[in-house]
Amino acid sequence: MTLSIIPVLGIPEVTPGDRIADLIAASDAVLLDGDVVVVTQKVVSKAEGRLAPVDASDPVGHKQLVLDESVRVLRRRGDLLLTETRHGFICANAGVDLSNVERGWAALLPLDSDRSARRIRDGLRARTGREVGVIVSDTFGRTWRRGVTDVAIGTAGVAAVVDLRGSTDALGRELKVTEVCVADEIAAAAELVMGKATAVPVAIVRGVDPSWMRDSSVRDEIVRAPAEDLFR
Amino acid sequence: MTLSIIPVLGIPEVTPGDRIADLIAASDAVLLDGDVVVVTQKVVSKAEGRLAPVDASDPVGHKQLVLDESVRVLRRRGDLLLTETRHGFICANAGVDLSNVERGWAALLPLDSDRSARRIRDGLRARTGREVGVIVSDTFGRTWRRGVTDVAIGTAGVAAVVDLRGSTDALGRELKVTEVCVADEIAAAAELVMGKATAVPVAIVRGVDPSWMRDSSVRDEIVRAPAEDLFR
Repeated sequence: MTLSIIPVLGIPEVTPGDRIADLIAASDAVLLDGDVVVVTQKVVSKAEGRLAPVDASDPVGHKQLVLDESVRVLRRRGDLLLTETRHGFICANAGVDLSNVERGWAALLPLDSDRSARRIRDGLRARTGREVGVIVSDTFGRTWRRGVTDVAIGTAGVAAVVDLRGSTDALGRELKVTEVCVADEIAAAAELVMGKATAVPVAIVRGVDPSWMRDSSVRDEIVRAPAEDLFR
Repeated sequence: MTLSIIPVLGIPEVTPGDRIADLIAASDAVLLDGDVVVVTQKVVSKAEGRLAPVDASDPVGHKQLVLDESVRVLRRRGDLLLTETRHGFICANAGVDLSNVERGWAALLPLDSDRSARRIRDGLRARTGREVGVIVSDTFGRTWRRGVTDVAIGTAGVAAVVDLRGSTDALGRELKVTEVCVADEIAAAAELVMGKATAVPVAIVRGVDPSWMRDSSVRDEIVRAPAEDLFR
């Protein structure tokens, strides 16, 4: 089945107190049951008022803001702090972001990004009657590869990780370790129509496997426990 | 612009000596200029004869095969070796894969996966007259996140990393570090229609930004030099 990735146009500038579901419902978007709606962290953080004042000429203050948002520092290099957030995400500068925010303000990650996704999903259900999945996406670097990609930091109504262990492959061999992080793949796909310099903070991914539409959580499914990983 | 991810049906079982471009040209696929054709590593390796005999009851032999394909071992845990391949990829078991291969055989990574992509691109141009991009994809784990996703291990005719440094965001602020790895995002998007247990080794991604269609290389653009990374 063909998958479609549809940018949602007509989302206005988001300000604290806005409800993302209302903005999507009022936009040009037409939702169908089974769609996955991907919303960038930046507008979710703005709507939730997760903004902090920053002084661009004060790198020490900026660094303190990053530390306040972190539970652990893994690496430092120059201005870059690679830290663990309270959600368990490992990312640059604890996800604190200065771009696409009014000058003098930084956007912080949502306090509970799975809950942010659930709130948008519930709001869309109430406004449109549609059963959709929602992914809150953010832009992360990778340890071993150059360039950033979008990943899921919150999910609702669509699987984060699909467990194919025990399935057989096309030759009848049992697949051993194939837990696919479909939420990150959907977030990455959505980024392809959003761009970074264009104001498209929402996209619809239409045509995903219906069996993926279920309760889910990035925290429970994607965040790797420290004991499980090889580099902490 | 809406993006479409189209699975290519009708690709037969691939055997050494097959030409992937010929198989795609003979399939149900209809290519347009500007399409990106994503081909999984498994069929590329099979076509290129990158297969090695393995004895499932001989884990020592399997481990030796992985070491032979590696230039460096980063971590070991249980059966898992996290190694650096000669391409510079950091991945589990040097990309040596037992699934979807005939029993008794393992698929090794292509010797030069960028060249594999170029060969398919050139073959498709010759067979169809279309100017397309080609991405050879493989399934990698991530340091800090559970679940695997597909990434690009070879590219031709479509950018690996798009550099948005110096662009301005929607509020006119200069974007500082926004090198987006679109090739990995396209590979991830394609995986969503391929599945792991289904025999769909090729997908078409239609509608990517035309400015991304250019000469490219995973090795030059995505592979992070050891001096640049924080964990080697």
